[in-house]
Amino acid sequence: MGVGSSSLSHSLSSSACTCPAFFFSHRSEPRLVLSSSSTLLPNPFLKPTVAVRMSSSSSHSSLSQPLRGQKSTDPESKFEDTSDAPVFDSRKLSPELIKELVSEALFWCSLHGLVVGDRNNARSAIVPGVGLTHAPISLLPTLFPEGHWKQACEVAPIFNELVDRVSLDSKFLQDSLSRTKVVDAFTSRLLDIHSKMLEINKKEEIRLGLHRSDYMLDAQTKQLLQIELNTISCSFPGLGSLISTLHRNLLNNHSKDLGVDSKKVPENGATSGFAEALAKAWNEYNDSSAVIMVVVSPEERNMYDQHWLCKELKERYPYIKKIRCCLTTIRRTLADINQEGEILPSGALRVGNHTVAVVYFRAGYSPDDYPSENEWSARLLMEHSSAIKCPSISYHLVGTKKIQQELAKPNVLERFLDNQDDIAKLRKCFAGLWSLDDSEVIQEALERPDLFVLKPQREGGGNNIYGDNVRDTLLKLQQEGAEGLAAYILMQRIFPKTSHAFMVRDGVCYQDNAISELGIYGAYLRNKDKVIMNDQCGYLMRTKVSSSNEGGVAAGFAVLDSIYLI
Amino acid sequence: MGVGSSSLSHSLSSSACTCPAFFFSHRSEPRLVLSSSSTLLPNPFLKPTVAVRMSSSSSHSSLSQPLRGQKSTDPESKFEDTSDAPVFDSRKLSPELIKELVSEALFWCSLHGLVVGDRNNARSAIVPGVGLTHAPISLLPTLFPEGHWKQACEVAPIFNELVDRVSLDSKFLQDSLSRTKVVDAFTSRLLDIHSKMLEINKKEEIRLGLHRSDYMLDAQTKQLLQIELNTISCSFPGLGSLISTLHRNLLNNHSKDLGVDSKKVPENGATSGFAEALAKAWNEYNDSSAVIMVVVSPEERNMYDQHWLCKELKERYPYIKKIRCCLTTIRRTLADINQEGEILPSGALRVGNHTVAVVYFRAGYSPDDYPSENEWSARLLMEHSSAIKCPSISYHLVGTKKIQQELAKPNVLERFLDNQDDIAKLRKCFAGLWSLDDSEVIQEALERPDLFVLKPQREGGGNNIYGDNVRDTLLKLQQEGAEGLAAYILMQRIFPKTSHAFMVRDGVCYQDNAISELGIYGAYLRNKDKVIMNDQCGYLMRTKVSSSNEGGVAAGFAVLDSIYLI
Repeated sequence: MGVGSSSLSHSLSSSACTCPAFFFSHRSEPRLVLSSSSTLLPNPFLKPTVAVRMSSSSSHSSLSQPLRGQKSTDPESKFEDTSDAPVFDSRKLSPELIKELVSEALFWCSLHGLVVGDRNNARSAIVPGVGLTHAPISLLPTLFPEGHWKQACEVAPIFNELVDRVSLDSKFLQDSLSRTKVVDAFTSRLLDIHSKMLEINKKEEIRLGLHRSDYMLDAQTKQLLQIELNTISCSFPGLGSLISTLHRNLLNNHSKDLGVDSKKVPENGATSGFAEALAKAWNEYNDSSAVIMVVVSPEERNMYDQHWLCKELKERYPYIKKIRCCLTTIRRTLADINQEGEILPSGALRVGNHTVAVVYFRAGYSPDDYPSENEWSARLLMEHSSAIKCPSISYHLVGTKKIQQELAKPNVLERFLDNQDDIAKLRKCFAGLWSLDDSEVIQEALERPDLFVLKPQREGGGNNIYGDNVRDTLLKLQQEGAEGLAAYILMQRIFPKTSHAFMVRDGVCYQDNAISELGIYGAYLRNKDKVIMNDQCGYLMRTKVSSSNEGGVAAGFAVLDSIYLI
Repeated sequence: MGVGSSSLSHSLSSSACTCPAFFFSHRSEPRLVLSSSSTLLPNPFLKPTVAVRMSSSSSHSSLSQPLRGQKSTDPESKFEDTSDAPVFDSRKLSPELIKELVSEALFWCSLHGLVVGDRNNARSAIVPGVGLTHAPISLLPTLFPEGHWKQACEVAPIFNELVDRVSLDSKFLQDSLSRTKVVDAFTSRLLDIHSKMLEINKKEEIRLGLHRSDYMLDAQTKQLLQIELNTISCSFPGLGSLISTLHRNLLNNHSKDLGVDSKKVPENGATSGFAEALAKAWNEYNDSSAVIMVVVSPEERNMYDQHWLCKELKERYPYIKKIRCCLTTIRRTLADINQEGEILPSGALRVGNHTVAVVYFRAGYSPDDYPSENEWSARLLMEHSSAIKCPSISYHLVGTKKIQQELAKPNVLERFLDNQDDIAKLRKCFAGLWSLDDSEVIQEALERPDLFVLKPQREGGGNNIYGDNVRDTLLKLQQEGAEGLAAYILMQRIFPKTSHAFMVRDGVCYQDNAISELGIYGAYLRNKDKVIMNDQCGYLMRTKVSSSNEGGVAAGFAVLDSIYLI
């Protein structure tokens, strides 16, 4: 699949998707490398200004037309209609109304658990219930074209299926990642585990995927372009569901002042969908005494997002299968699992007093999650067991940048999918993406570096490279030879439109120009030949200050958001 | 009505009931003057030890039998049955289970808005959504005899009615408080407003009371004794409702380990009951554009408790009276009201752009709430208006200690109530309570000071006096003469049983001996001759460390609790 990139995607869509750096600085400080003119989405209630740019882009990863200008002819897209839509100017909201909306929103967050640990409180990442603060939020939803929304929802089950098919092709995974292995120690360790499973011919008959595919709207082509597909530890199904409800409430309560229809904010079934998938997986495992284990970080400010899923599991599935057995979730770190875990002769994973039916990773996606060999031992132990892993090592590898780039090559999707319509739908949202073994694309990037992003292959670290730095780095890499070039991927740069937004953090409301990214959650469950679940379930909008005000007070933070369909 | 006192009552049941000092130290530091052997309630799941004390007590305020020993003969009381009840020893819960329960409880608090402002975060009392922490809670509910529970619920509507009747007897209020007026400037100001309303013959035809009557169980007599009746700013209907739900959930989820029945924790309708009364009052006011105004402190760490009511009002009564009109609540300080408020020619109260139908006081109960004449002006303005005051100045005065003591005198209840059964039921829960104009009771207190508490008349400040200090103070007051004596009330000392409890504050679980106090909420609404609502609605249990460990880590804090009926 295609992976696009932009100034936003680094911060918002790193593989560290449980706890992005921009939200929780205890992991790593947010480092913004923002274009000075990036644009993405129309303003929620503001007439979009017409942005005309000479830069071109492509929705296809075909090398033959890497970055040619392209005008949208998609009949679904209402992107251009919005200039005539009856929307109002959020800049003209009265200070009194804004103050009232902010107060109402903050009370709502506090009463409804739309909270995170406060980064100023050290204990808030360790002890539940202390050092709480409202999640950073957008005060109002961001406008999004209904056609693109439907498009993003429609491809979710196809991506789910694709991940499953690719995960079964061990040779494709190993071959594609063979050069990455040399330059990225983390991917190398994952591949080692994958190899060990191949050696013992380990089969995962029950496969559970909880994915999130992230998109931006490209301002020039009016195309929905995929930024990346996350197959491990997708964050914010819980809080993302909540903010949709908050926005619907605010629009409802102030319908007169805002003059909008709250039903245009899609209901968000991310929590219930993920919980349903986890519960059904547990059911397939068929041991009523077994538990769902959430693998967590020792320090986690986003623990409440995780706990919304546990709550849903407990309350919606208390007596699954009509037996008086409560669906129990436990939380363990990789270090805990290394200490308490063992594999029974049956192959079952035992952690402490619990047999584990489903391992749900909300940690383990980043090199930082493996400070010692203990954590790797725990990961290997789980992979050896008969527990359902969400994700398995294969699913995890499918989510790497390199695999995404390989899938974007011509004729690769056809190896995994049969339906030509499905293939066309996926391709339509692929941004341009190339490895650096092609001199033609390198040449193009040297000539027009502003149209590309250089993205390091390394998982869980490193910044994307923009602008003139693309040229300088490419020249340096060419001198280093093949190994240096293998450490990077070249991507089409997306230019999202900016829009005016109110963003609330730490009880303070900022207004600024912002850009947004839409994530679509997908849930997939299969037992041998039987697909039990293959759904799009809910979404996550994230909005952040655009680069134009990088030095402003609000620079460097992103907020949870929802969408308002136009 | 009778007002008992105890070591607990000072901290837990001051008139500062919106934001008791023990919870939120920004108001005043909790100062505990605890008996070294006070006892009250049986442990939730612990066999009560038999406490035999020689101290006597009385359920009646009759002077003829002030403090004679009295054995319970109440057939409803199961107090003594608990030694044989199939309960388990909470001291024997495994550390693992306690850890699990604490974690579960803290996540529950965070997700369900059982939160307060953190006293270590200055902004948490001003800005919603920041500096949140879980409310201090008891991990498990406290055992309470079902007979006493029913008794407390049964008298709630009678107390509601009594408050209304007494409020109409202006002469009784003025006469009873005439000596208090001299020694207490705060009561004096309230009486001034009351007098002004009498002068202009102001009538309150629609009267709304949201009360809370607080009780303890006396260990010797096995009697339910009233501590005080709060008629203004009763705190914790919101959080109190929540903790009952939390406890039911915990008992449900761990029914195997705990071996108890969650249905024995009564459902708590405090929020819905108070909201219903406020909405119905708003309805009686009959102006669909008018709002409910919550009078709040400029700094309030308990704002979420208040907001649970506003949420209930918004969500349950969005289109009251079938008109498309949302029931709106606004929050204003007394200073705001002084600045923005005016009375229209119609008599209506206008605050900013809003006509106010109902004024709901969650501040204004303490001298601290009136730092300048501005706040008194605001109070007077509201009293002058046609808005429904909850409470009116008359209702407020009925809740003073002095009135409670007057009502406890022989034959006084008969002035206000007709039904002898009702009178008997109220008397049954009156503790001994006397003014210091009677030499006989003073003599008794000088001889047995350990059986009495000296309580200052002054509202909103001052500590109760216990033990030998009672004798010393009485001797001093006798020398000062009538005025000194008028500044105090003498009360029967209640000896509540201690029980083992787990108390969780700031993410840390303490176990200690504790004593508890039960508050029963009552809602009363009347329009002229028509009683629209007269209900008991929900309850509040508060538990705190007993004096025996006053120097321990957990000393000095109280927690929200619920009850488990036995």
